[in-house]
Amino acid sequence: MKDLKGKDILSAFDFDRETLEHLFTEADELRKKLSEGKIKLADGKIMATVFLEPSTRTKISFQMAMVKLGGSIIDFQPESSSLQKGESDLDTIKIIDGYSPDLIVLRQSKPYFPHSIKDKIETPIINGGDGTNEHPTQALLDLYTIWRELGRIDGLKIGIMGDLKYGRTAPSLSYMLTFFKGVKVYYISPKELRLRDEVKNKINGKIIYEEMERLEEIEDELDVLYVTRLQKERFSDPTEYERLKSSYIVTQDSLKKLKKIPIIMHPLPRVWELPEEIDSLPQAKYFEQAKNGMFVRAALIKEILGL
Amino acid sequence: MKDLKGKDILSAFDFDRETLEHLFTEADELRKKLSEGKIKLADGKIMATVFLEPSTRTKISFQMAMVKLGGSIIDFQPESSSLQKGESDLDTIKIIDGYSPDLIVLRQSKPYFPHSIKDKIETPIINGGDGTNEHPTQALLDLYTIWRELGRIDGLKIGIMGDLKYGRTAPSLSYMLTFFKGVKVYYISPKELRLRDEVKNKINGKIIYEEMERLEEIEDELDVLYVTRLQKERFSDPTEYERLKSSYIVTQDSLKKLKKIPIIMHPLPRVWELPEEIDSLPQAKYFEQAKNGMFVRAALIKEILGL
Amino acid sequence: MKDLKGKDILSAFDFDRETLEHLFTEADELRKKLSEGKIKLADGKIMATVFLEPSTRTKISFQMAMVKLGGSIIDFQPESSSLQKGESDLDTIKIIDGYSPDLIVLRQSKPYFPHSIKDKIETPIINGGDGTNEHPTQALLDLYTIWRELGRIDGLKIGIMGDLKYGRTAPSLSYMLTFFKGVKVYYISPKELRLRDEVKNKINGKIIYEEMERLEEIEDELDVLYVTRLQKERFSDPTEYERLKSSYIVTQDSLKKLKKIPIIMHPLPRVWELPEEIDSLPQAKYFEQAKNGMFVRAALIKEILGL
Repeated sequence: MKDLKGKDILSAFDFDRETLEHLFTEADELRKKLSEGKIKLADGKIMATVFLEPSTRTKISFQMAMVKLGGSIIDFQPESSSLQKGESDLDTIKIIDGYSPDLIVLRQSKPYFPHSIKDKIETPIINGGDGTNEHPTQALLDLYTIWRELGRIDGLKIGIMGDLKYGRTAPSLSYMLTFFKGVKVYYISPKELRLRDEVKNKINGKIIYEEMERLEEIEDELDVLYVTRLQKERFSDPTEYERLKSSYIVTQDSLKKLKKIPIIMHPLPRVWELPEEIDSLPQAKYFEQAKNGMFVRAALIKEILGL
Repeated sequence: MKDLKGKDILSAFDFDRETLEHLFTEADELRKKLSEGKIKLADGKIMATVFLEPSTRTKISFQMAMVKLGGSIIDFQPESSSLQKGESDLDTIKIIDGYSPDLIVLRQSKPYFPHSIKDKIETPIINGGDGTNEHPTQALLDLYTIWRELGRIDGLKIGIMGDLKYGRTAPSLSYMLTFFKGVKVYYISPKELRLRDEVKNKINGKIIYEEMERLEEIEDELDVLYVTRLQKERFSDPTEYERLKSSYIVTQDSLKKLKKIPIIMHPLPRVWELPEEIDSLPQAKYFEQAKNGMFVRAALIKEILGL
Repeated sequence: MKDLKGKDILSAFDFDRETLEHLFTEADELRKKLSEGKIKLADGKIMATVFLEPSTRTKISFQMAMVKLGGSIIDFQPESSSLQKGESDLDTIKIIDGYSPDLIVLRQSKPYFPHSIKDKIETPIINGGDGTNEHPTQALLDLYTIWRELGRIDGLKIGIMGDLKYGRTAPSLSYMLTFFKGVKVYYISPKELRLRDEVKNKINGKIIYEEMERLEEIEDELDVLYVTRLQKERFSDPTEYERLKSSYIVTQDSLKKLKKIPIIMHPLPRVWELPEEIDSLPQAKYFEQAKNGMFVRAALIKEILGL
């Protein structure tokens, strides 16, 4: 098991199987303790949230986790900062680092940006999303949700559908699945939005996968359907987007054509790909999934701060 | 008296006379205790502020109240959230609810929005303004101010002037006045900005009222003059706003024509309807009124959290 | 020594030599204590940050300082406030003052704005920058940095370069230098951006100074080179900005032509005037300088709150 104390978390590969299982168990324990009353573990500790792109779940769940652990948060707001006067992102983060928070959660639009600055920053950094590259704590809560719902990850058949080229959740989730045995992934997307070669190179030989264009092509039984959002702005031809989007909506009808899928997940925000009619299905776990994020991020904070 | 523990506060009608009097007494007690030193009543509790429209007083006074009670706050900022990616307000609030804060204070532009979502949200919600419909905690601090200044509410003659059609403070204040005896309200507004029928239907037979177009038409003695802003953002036609605004300015001159009004109130922000020359009059209570908001909101938080 | 308890800090002249030396010593002590563990000095105290213009360092360092001292912060966000509905800055600050925070840190774009409102506000105000006029706590951390690095301020030769007309750090730093003996300042700027007469009037006869157009004109040995940004937003004519900017870049080459300067400082943000190649020089102290800001501001908070 990896000792995460004082460590950066930049990639799904910064974990391993044993560490994940430890975090999941810890998340369950914190869930229980928090329901019983307040915790003062992180009293006197400060987490800085530095989100240079919009966020709802990642930022708020980290903040709630830190406050529930008894710690404090300082939120850097880019729109009212010296970034508006032309200061670089690196200088901004060096300044925050200089004030010695105990942890920085960083979202920035450039792939590998946190990797490029980590040696200049003393505070542990959690990558809260670096453009199209990775979102390791999203994968953490994704797998924590599957682990809680199905009791295991080994041997599962997982469909990941939507924008697999520009989305950062499919890569991080895929990387994390390489730690488990006998996993099979079905990547369901338009040809134009398949996984990038860079991602395939990191999973080849570690998980079995198939690429397909439509959910209906899966003959086998899925244990998990993980839906992601198609982003209109990624298509050079908007009529192509309109033509394709209908194939990636999960409706009650499209679900009827498949064998029953035990759990349907989505990193959220969803736009049209999961209509509200799906929310009431017992398999719809995406709000539960988001909620799990707070607990497993609390567990991660606890490990990094060595509490 | 109503037990507010764990309850939503969506309307002025969620209170009753006894509950109001209890909250006012409690607000006075908290005021005294806070002046004597710090309070740890809400230690470990978290309030989420979710303001999807601008706010100064409501948001900051709730935050100050919570922090002074010893609790913590998490502020959701719409402009840097996934609302920018097309996420719905309901999904956003469901996510925040999933992280289990102890209380959500919500401002949203659609009338009855909090009513429409409350059954999907476990956390108690305080309506911090739902468009043109209501702003129940504004009415709470309005009446708390009158109660402190005049010692009673029964039998008072209250002038409410300005935009009574689009403003949300006039409806909530009117509803709350129905709990008291012998109140008479003078609604002073341009014909175009009179109370909506929906509001009148809820007060008919419960308070006596008269509608008039100019403050000078009141022959009787007023106990309270409650001025509101013509809300520019509620007008579809800006020339209508410009035409009407001049009639509803309170000046030293316009006050001289009336019998002495013991207190002049305003929910604020004021723009041009109360010139700064009025601020120094002993009757000008609007800054005191805003300040009272923090104490009575602290009392409300205490009751809802069952502290 | 001045007793700062409950006092406003609006100008560098609100300090004196003894008070500064006391604050510097206190900042060093707080630095030591904070490295040893958490501090609960400001438990139950609330600081409101009211930044009506962008800020990174001033706002975040005050917030970090307050939280590290054990206190709480309430951040007023102008872009989502009633300022958007036309409320005046004065009304806004009176409202916040009414909620009785223990301290307000205020940044506003009009020179002498905090001076103009201070008698209407009960809470102690720290001027976090009033347009082109002053930024007294920036001067505080500037001198604290020099004091730490060189062990003294008396008798130093200090070059202040860049925009001396519109920048507010040069005036505050100059005013604070008048408390010390035998200081000589070289003001290096384009003629168009020289110190305003108003500033010169306050330092004449108290420090010796020379004005020059280029760094190379200094024949004497500098103890400190303090570089500032040409503030694009202060220029009415953008072509003037483009014409002038090239003369005030500090490069390895331009440094070679000078005798070795022990420390190079900058209030930050830097844009192009200090290229990153300078950062690795041992004299480059600007990130250290920013970091010092948190400690000396913590010392100031401690004094004003009487902790």
